[in-house]
Amino acid sequence: MPTIKDIATRLNLSVSTVSKGLSGASDVSDKTRQLIINTAMEMGYVPKQGREGANPVKICVFIENMGYERIEQFGYDIIVGFKLEAAAKKWDVSIVPLAMNQESQYNYDDYMVTHHYAAGFLLGFTLHNDFIAQMQKTNIPTVLLDNVVYNKNVACVGIDNQQGIFYVVEHLARLGHRNIAMLNGETISRVSHERLNGFRLGMEKCGLNVREELVAHGDYMTDCADKFVSYFIREGATAIVCASDLLAHGVLRELYRMGLRVPDDVSVAGFDDLPLASYTTPSLTTIRQNRMAIGKSVCMVMDQMMHGTHINRLLLMPELVVRESTGKPKI
Amino acid sequence: MPTIKDIATRLNLSVSTVSKGLSGASDVSDKTRQLIINTAMEMGYVPKQGREGANPVKICVFIENMGYERIEQFGYDIIVGFKLEAAAKKWDVSIVPLAMNQESQYNYDDYMVTHHYAAGFLLGFTLHNDFIAQMQKTNIPTVLLDNVVYNKNVACVGIDNQQGIFYVVEHLARLGHRNIAMLNGETISRVSHERLNGFRLGMEKCGLNVREELVAHGDYMTDCADKFVSYFIREGATAIVCASDLLAHGVLRELYRMGLRVPDDVSVAGFDDLPLASYTTPSLTTIRQNRMAIGKSVCMVMDQMMHGTHINRLLLMPELVVRESTGKPKI
Repeated sequence: MPTIKDIATRLNLSVSTVSKGLSGASDVSDKTRQLIINTAMEMGYVPKQGREGANPVKICVFIENMGYERIEQFGYDIIVGFKLEAAAKKWDVSIVPLAMNQESQYNYDDYMVTHHYAAGFLLGFTLHNDFIAQMQKTNIPTVLLDNVVYNKNVACVGIDNQQGIFYVVEHLARLGHRNIAMLNGETISRVSHERLNGFRLGMEKCGLNVREELVAHGDYMTDCADKFVSYFIREGATAIVCASDLLAHGVLRELYRMGLRVPDDVSVAGFDDLPLASYTTPSLTTIRQNRMAIGKSVCMVMDQMMHGTHINRLLLMPELVVRESTGKPKI
Repeated sequence: MPTIKDIATRLNLSVSTVSKGLSGASDVSDKTRQLIINTAMEMGYVPKQGREGANPVKICVFIENMGYERIEQFGYDIIVGFKLEAAAKKWDVSIVPLAMNQESQYNYDDYMVTHHYAAGFLLGFTLHNDFIAQMQKTNIPTVLLDNVVYNKNVACVGIDNQQGIFYVVEHLARLGHRNIAMLNGETISRVSHERLNGFRLGMEKCGLNVREELVAHGDYMTDCADKFVSYFIREGATAIVCASDLLAHGVLRELYRMGLRVPDDVSVAGFDDLPLASYTTPSLTTIRQNRMAIGKSVCMVMDQMMHGTHINRLLLMPELVVRESTGKPKI
């Protein structure tokens, strides 16, 4: 099978010129590039996938503020999906858990270069500002879960949060709900903004008004449902859209405490499809994030980034999973 | 190296259960899935990349309303990038050019199944409505250039158009421009919406007002600059942001006809970085779409889709290329 070197020899060009011509770089003239491409096609050139040689590519995964060690935790399947794909590429993967705020002690690029890491994957519900600031100028190919940074070396992978909540609202509107409340996560999180956008778009698309008193921000990590649920109910909400399954779980418990039945009195929907969503009573209607697919996609995007393709964002499709916690509103 | 069958034998489970457990499917219990994953990791399981066997995967590429046969045309590098990656995967690729409106004669899924195509790639500036309608319910893994459809079997690949125009506006604002006009493409195109959003966001971010009389829609395929340029100039525009290099080329010619100098009297920017952008006088400041990278990314996304990962959208990073056509405004 012909190599870049063979093409270079045939054309009497340097290996780097041929390589640039094949990668679409702008500093090779069109005429030369055309010649390189035609010759490559004619010789049956096939790009080499991945690097070969004695030293495997070293990858570092940083995790902050997210469980990943047990199957019921959000990060578990993401890491498994990533590791499986990385194994196929023969990458050497290190997992580095970060304690809250510990990143401020790191200079990310120094750390990566010193430890011979070729690329990084960062995941956590709320990444520390200092680390995100460093992402804006890093030279290391890096993939973030759900966080978007406009640096050609940084890509974002996650599901389409907006569309996910959109599906939930559409589902509830079809059941006949009009007064739909949303219990969102922290305002500082990008994911919360996208989910709130999805809520507003969904309501608009279904011809429903967003009542601002029925929109509240809790947080993803702790139970805060008791603060909002009774207020929502007093304001006439017949359905509560939650930005996570954990929030929804808190809402179910609070409704139970108040003596209200789900979905007969109030419908409740979650987000994530964590294992717990099947085990609540009633089981939760939710939006499935295929976390194994997220992990695999991170690996694929990282591979492309290491080969010079500047990916900004990869969005996976959310999937509505209808279980028992949503039904028609009382007449 | 252990296979899925080896894992199934060890655990006394069916091959399909193991396969589902490893793909993150929701209909395997957590306990079983944990067992499958632990066993796979312990046995050193590595996923098989791509399919093997006698019959290569057949892929169909449909092109409408876009040149791709010569290097100076927009589609050329996309197809080359796609073909190079497809060659590495040993895919058998057919290119099917579609005459305008011809798609209404096709039932897409029937066509694909009858011809044994495993996946499709559709590109064109304005895809026919009937084809887009079919995309909303296709069961064939399909990738569209720049067009977003919410079907789990359809993914969109393209550059971040909004961010691209944002970079142009930021560049012009930094040079000191305040009265910036935008000559956009057809209103019916999704790409035009995104580019106009980028224009508005960029102006807002830079503290500038969008003057609606300085925003116009032309089209991507024909020369329409003469209709808008003299009006923009009369209204006091010192810079014209164009939604494509072809539009910018028309603007340059019209300004020349009017006796105005670029960038001394008016700055002009394009979009795409087609080969022509280096050859205009003056050469064009523009946004580079790395079309080879787009083609490669389509291939990568398609591969994931055929393996059951539902990708909604992959966005590549745009790149500002500053050449001669932009400069400081006259004082």
